[in-house]
Parts: sequence; structure tokens; C-alpha cells
Amino acid sequence: MPTIISMDISDIRFPTSRLLDGSDAMNLDPDYSAAYLRLGTDYPGHPYGYGFVFTIGRGNDVQAAAISLLEPLVLGRDVDEVIQDLGAFSASLNRDSQLRWLGPEKGVIHMAIGAVVNAAWDLAARIAEKPLWRFIADMTPAQLVSQIDFRYLTDALTPDEALAILTDAEPGKAARIADLTARGYAAYTTSPGWLGYDDAKLERLVVEAVEAGFGLIKLKVGRDVDEDIRRVALARRVMGPSVQLAVDANQRWDVPDAIAWIRQLASYDLAWIEEPTSPDDILGHAAIRKGIAPIPVSTGEHTHNRVMFKQLLQAGSVDLIQIDAARVGGVNENLAILLLATKFSIPVYPHAGGVGLCELVQHLAMADFVAISGQMDDRSIEYVDHLHEHFVDPVVINNGRYMAPTAPGFSAEIKAETVADYVFPHGPQWQEPGPINAVE
Amino acid sequence: MPTIISMDISDIRFPTSRLLDGSDAMNLDPDYSAAYLRLGTDYPGHPYGYGFVFTIGRGNDVQAAAISLLEPLVLGRDVDEVIQDLGAFSASLNRDSQLRWLGPEKGVIHMAIGAVVNAAWDLAARIAEKPLWRFIADMTPAQLVSQIDFRYLTDALTPDEALAILTDAEPGKAARIADLTARGYAAYTTSPGWLGYDDAKLERLVVEAVEAGFGLIKLKVGRDVDEDIRRVALARRVMGPSVQLAVDANQRWDVPDAIAWIRQLASYDLAWIEEPTSPDDILGHAAIRKGIAPIPVSTGEHTHNRVMFKQLLQAGSVDLIQIDAARVGGVNENLAILLLATKFSIPVYPHAGGVGLCELVQHLAMADFVAISGQMDDRSIEYVDHLHEHFVDPVVINNGRYMAPTAPGFSAEIKAETVADYVFPHGPQWQEPGPINAVE
Repeated sequence: MPTIISMDISDIRFPTSRLLDGSDAMNLDPDYSAAYLRLGTDYPGHPYGYGFVFTIGRGNDVQAAAISLLEPLVLGRDVDEVIQDLGAFSASLNRDSQLRWLGPEKGVIHMAIGAVVNAAWDLAARIAEKPLWRFIADMTPAQLVSQIDFRYLTDALTPDEALAILTDAEPGKAARIADLTARGYAAYTTSPGWLGYDDAKLERLVVEAVEAGFGLIKLKVGRDVDEDIRRVALARRVMGPSVQLAVDANQRWDVPDAIAWIRQLASYDLAWIEEPTSPDDILGHAAIRKGIAPIPVSTGEHTHNRVMFKQLLQAGSVDLIQIDAARVGGVNENLAILLLATKFSIPVYPHAGGVGLCELVQHLAMADFVAISGQMDDRSIEYVDHLHEHFVDPVVINNGRYMAPTAPGFSAEIKAETVADYVFPHGPQWQEPGPINAVE
Repeated sequence: MPTIISMDISDIRFPTSRLLDGSDAMNLDPDYSAAYLRLGTDYPGHPYGYGFVFTIGRGNDVQAAAISLLEPLVLGRDVDEVIQDLGAFSASLNRDSQLRWLGPEKGVIHMAIGAVVNAAWDLAARIAEKPLWRFIADMTPAQLVSQIDFRYLTDALTPDEALAILTDAEPGKAARIADLTARGYAAYTTSPGWLGYDDAKLERLVVEAVEAGFGLIKLKVGRDVDEDIRRVALARRVMGPSVQLAVDANQRWDVPDAIAWIRQLASYDLAWIEEPTSPDDILGHAAIRKGIAPIPVSTGEHTHNRVMFKQLLQAGSVDLIQIDAARVGGVNENLAILLLATKFSIPVYPHAGGVGLCELVQHLAMADFVAISGQMDDRSIEYVDHLHEHFVDPVVINNGRYMAPTAPGFSAEIKAETVADYVFPHGPQWQEPGPINAVE
């Protein structure tokens, strides 16, 4: 029988801190990185499955080592069995009793599981010769329910409720696939808004974003309130009233500080304030939301699992959520989160950027539109114009919208020459490091 | 100036799964392990500081590698500066902007920081020639406040409120030190209650525990409700009505299951139900507590940081909490948690067992009694009679009570011969592994 025969894991880092790309109030000097997995098989045609964890530099080696901890649970497994029951595969990784202690279901070990699970989905979609969004969307409601680990969810979402949501979404699937294929899925952009950019660069990038068709632009805030007011005012003046403006504090504040700070930005018609405080603070987000109403509150890119998303929804902490394709335990857990969001009627604005997060998360948003929530026009996917050139199947953005991928798989494969060039610390790109900048 | 000159890190594992010590509903086959750190200095007398992360086997190597990620932040630092401002030292590890992404403040990277921080406190107490509990208790209220990272706490506990709690505890410190030194601190035992033990062994161990003076015994539950009723009834019959009986489900249930299951144990006068569901489920614990009132609810050994403890207290999720010395970011974060518990008038029953957790956490409970909550007689420290022989300064239990340690430091040092014997995978104890058992 065809089996999984190899897990090749690479520590790939891009020296992004040299240009301050990606700088925000908490992440001053990121080197965007991927702990990258190639899952090898002896299936006919020898397809690979690709997955990765996104990190911002130091520790990417340990993240890669954490992926290798899963080798005994993965190598030698029957490919057909894995791809025909990805729910069981995912559960088998999450329930290893010794590894579970390192989380449970959070941080380094959980992201490692997410990379392996995502690679298995990539493999399954490649073998099915479908882009991942379509592979998911073509599953029956019962097949989709079988992907979900309902442990710790049944007080908010039962298997029967999930089945009902998915069954309700069955009519119109074909029309939504046609709509998605024709129009794509709206993107919003964070490229203009990094804290390390000066005003001239901010203004130029905002103009370019509006001209490129983006309907929503996001700025980083949280280092200095007067500077934030100035930058937000500048952006709002340049973009005009018809483009939406969101701000992102990257966990910078305590609850009382968040309320006081955001109120000073209230007159700029904010689409949302993102990550105002600790991603763990469910009650804190609820208090902030109450304190700054009607400004919408959002979080999710660091929300570590479905149990935390469940509570954000139960507590009324957020007006929208941001899923991340590489923070939680992979596609299966993200399907659970998308079902929870649908149950609570909360829109999902997927988090992206980093290395390959746009490539991955577009598939989840598109599958959600076709097969789960049925919604697309009240939401959009984050887009940052960095590092796409390193991917074999990079995202395609036309007029501010993600075009639906057509190549089989999860768009997760990094070019072989990139892996060779950027592997840390011995790749050629790391042999003569330039100056490392950091936001003061 | 004297500096920190080395970080020696060892992957130490004990083959405890061979005997089913430590087996429970979620942890079927633990090999109790320590990712063990020796912090070397060239301070006069060349003292070391010792710290570790407790794990249950697989992944202990990655946990050790995570500790080594902190070397650039630790090696070469001025020992006097570190030990005179342990708050700043702790913050400097937690705020590394790249490593923070791996948590933030949770899981493998956070436990690694905890081990380094604990080792620095061990070093500081050794240099001060005091046991850690006394080293903490001898700090002024202002010095103690300076240990705390109040980020994300100020909606529940401000520096001024913390200072007031600590100032209130100043009178009577000397009397409490005398009381503690004379009487010790109450222990409770989990040794009889592991799921892997048969009834005869359970009964024998309960009898021995009562005879040894323990006032509270804890049993593992959650695998089978009828079996639980039988085992709880057996234990209650053997121990009589005057000894307290707690049960621990180790995160086994969803919220509705927990309520239904625990109600079937209600007639056995339970002291608490511990970890009924996911440690992340703050709202779930609150719902369970309401659903099984008046049976007390507890959690904490897997609660990953102060932000989660804050919310457990804010939401009324628990009747008591269980701190763990090696799960959060070290002594500093545990001091924050002890202050939060005092603010909310919730007793702390420290979690222990594993490898060296008793040795560590006794110091925190005793410091809390002397300098923070001022309370001892409404609470007790978990005790499990495993693996103490491997420690240079093992706990001393007399008549069911922890005797106050007198040796300088945090009691964290593992014997050199143990390190050599049990280092994984090349130590002699791992050369001829016996059969690995698991609970069916």
C-alpha cells in the first residue's frame, strides 16, 4: 500500500527586518520565517504534501524540531487511509498523550500539528486534483462534520447543529462556485500601514492601494497615541470616506488603556480595532467592546485554538474574527472555527501576510463561502504584498480581489530554489547579513 | 563583574510508564521527564542556579531546545544585576519580540522562560543563603510589586492594589514564619488515586495515606462513570467521613458531560472536582460550577499564564485554583497569580507531583502564607510520593505536612548521578527499556 515515506523539514528565514517590513507595536524586527514541511509518499506519481508554521525569526529551528516530533505518528501511514479520513488523522496527532502535555492544544506543539495536518490536506487535494477550497467544498455535509473534533465544543456547537448549518448551505453551492470563480473574493490590504514606514511612504502606499481597488486598508497603531491620530488622519484624508479603514494594535494595551486610546481615534470611522489586548483575554475584549461601542472589535490571528474562539463568540467579545491558517491545528480546527462563526453569525476576515499565509487562508475563506457560511460580500481576506514570489502557486490579486486558485492543493509549496537560498543559517542569503533594523 | 557563563541543559526522563505511576484519564502512559537547566556563573564560590520544565516524555528534547533559545538573552549577563532585579530579568525574556510569536506567553516557549526565570531565583536565593520561600518573604512590599509584570492585569489588579495587599500582610510576618517553621504546611496526597491501580492497591494506599496524617486524598476520575462511582465509594468507605476527598478528571469532559457525570458523584462529599474540561475554557468552568453547585470546581495546573488565571477569577469559574511552579513563566508570574487569588479571596491549592514539582511549589505556597495572603489553614499543597530521591534537597513530609525547607535556594537541584543515569536516550537507564505499559 502507498505510505507516507518522508518528512523533510527546513528552517527557512527571510531577512525582512533589514527593511522593517512587518514592523508593528509588538513585533519590532521580524524576520519572516517558515518551519517548512515536505511530506513525501510513494503514492503513484509520488506526490508531496506541503505545510508550514509561520514564525518571525528566532525559534524557527525549535518550531521545525517540534514538527519532527510527529514523525513517529506519521511515517509509514497508509496514504489512502489518511486522505480518506483527515479527521481521524488530525485527531491522532492531537491526542498523543505525551505530546499533549506540551500544549495542550496551544503554542509550538499545536502549530507543529497544524503544519502536518495542513500538509496532509494539501496532499489529499493534490491527489484529488482539486484546489483545496474546492476539495473541501465538494465534501458532503456528513463528510465535513466528520472532520471536526467536537471535544470541548458541544456546549456551543453539536455535531447535529453543524450538520444542519452545512445542509442549509447545500442549495446554491454551484452558483456560489460560479460567482467565486468569476469575481474572486474581496481582499483588504495592510501593506501601507507598518509602523516603520514614514509619512511619505504611508501616503504613497495608501494612494496605490486605493488605485489598486482595495476597499479596506489597515494601519498598525499602538506605539504613540498622537502619532496614531496623525497617521490615521493622514490615511483617512488620502483615502477619502468611501474606503474602509481598520487599525491593529497587535496586543499592545491593557483593557483600560485600550478603551482610552481607541476613543481618541473614534472620529475616523474605523472598520474595526484589531488585537487591542492579550489574545488570551476573552473577558478583556468583551469589556473593551463595551467601552468603545459602536467601534467594532476583532481578534484571532493569535487565538490558539477552537476553545478560545468558542468563548470569544459566547462572551460577545468581538464583532468579527480573524482566522489564521498556521496558528491553530490545521484545516480541521479551522473548519470547526468557521462553523462556530456561522453559528454565532459573526463574519470572518482571515488574517494573512507573513510567509504564505495569504496563499493558505484564501482556500479556507473560499470554502467557507461555498459550503459553510454562504457569505462573501460582508467580509474580506487580508492581503500583504510580500514574499509571494517564493511560492510555486502564488495568490493572484485582480482589482483588489483574490482570484480563486485553480491549481491542485493548498498553494503551500515553496520554490526549491528559495528553500536552498534562505535556509537558516547556512543558505547563501544568510552568509553576509546586512544591518538588522528595529523600530526604536 | 561576575556573569552568567553557562547554560547546561539536559533531557532527563524517568521510565514511569512501566509501572503506570501517574496514569489518568488523559495521560495514559507518562514517562515523567525534566528539561533541566543548570545556570553557571563565575560569581564568588561559583554558585549555580537550577530550573526545569516538567513534561511527560516525548517532546522533552524540544522543550530542552526551547530553553537553549534563551541563551543569547542570558549568557554574559551581570549576576548582580539579574538577582537584584529579577522582575526586569523576567520581563526581558518575555518581551523578546521574535520568540514571543511562538506563544505568546503559552506552551513550550513560555515554560522554557519559566525554567530560566526559576533558575535565576534559585541562584539569587542561594547567593542570599536563604530558602526561596524566605528569600521572597523577606522582600519589602515595594520589592515584591517590582517583580510583577502588570501587563494585561490592570483591569483586575493594579500595582497600587498589589502594594496594599502586601502592606496589609506585613504585620504578623514574624509570627507566621515561626508558625510555618514549627508546624509546616498541610499536604494532600494523590498517590493512592491513579487510574492504573487496582482496587486492592487503591484501598491499601488510602489506608496508608490516612495513617500518614493526610487530611485530603485525591482520586483520578473520568474514564468510566460506573468505575468512578465504585472507586470513589470504596475510597470514601475506607477513609471515613472526616478525611476530605477530591477528584480530578484531567480535562476529560465537555461542559454538559461534566455536569452530568459529576452529579453522579455528588453524594460522596467531594472537596472539589479538578480540571473537569479544557484548561482554556473559562466560561465552561463557570457553567460547570453553576451546574454542579455546591460542589467546588478547580483548575490551574495547565492554566498557561496570569491572563487566564485573571479571567478564571473574574468570571467566577472556580472555588479554588491550583498553581504550578513549572507551567507559567516562573516565580514572577506565580507571584502575580498569588496576588490575584488574594485579591479575589480564592484559596490556592498548589499542583505538584511529576518530577520536582513538590520541591518547587512548596516554596511559593509558604511565601504566600508569610507575605501575601497570610492564609495557610484553609488550603494544602498536593503531594505525590514519586522521584523525590533524585533531588539534592527533597521535600520533607511529617505527619501529612510539608516541613519548611531550610537549605538555600529553590530545592530544584537534581543529583548529578541521576542526570547521568536518566539522560535520554543514552543514559544507562534507557539502554534496556522494559515493557511500556498503557492504560487500556
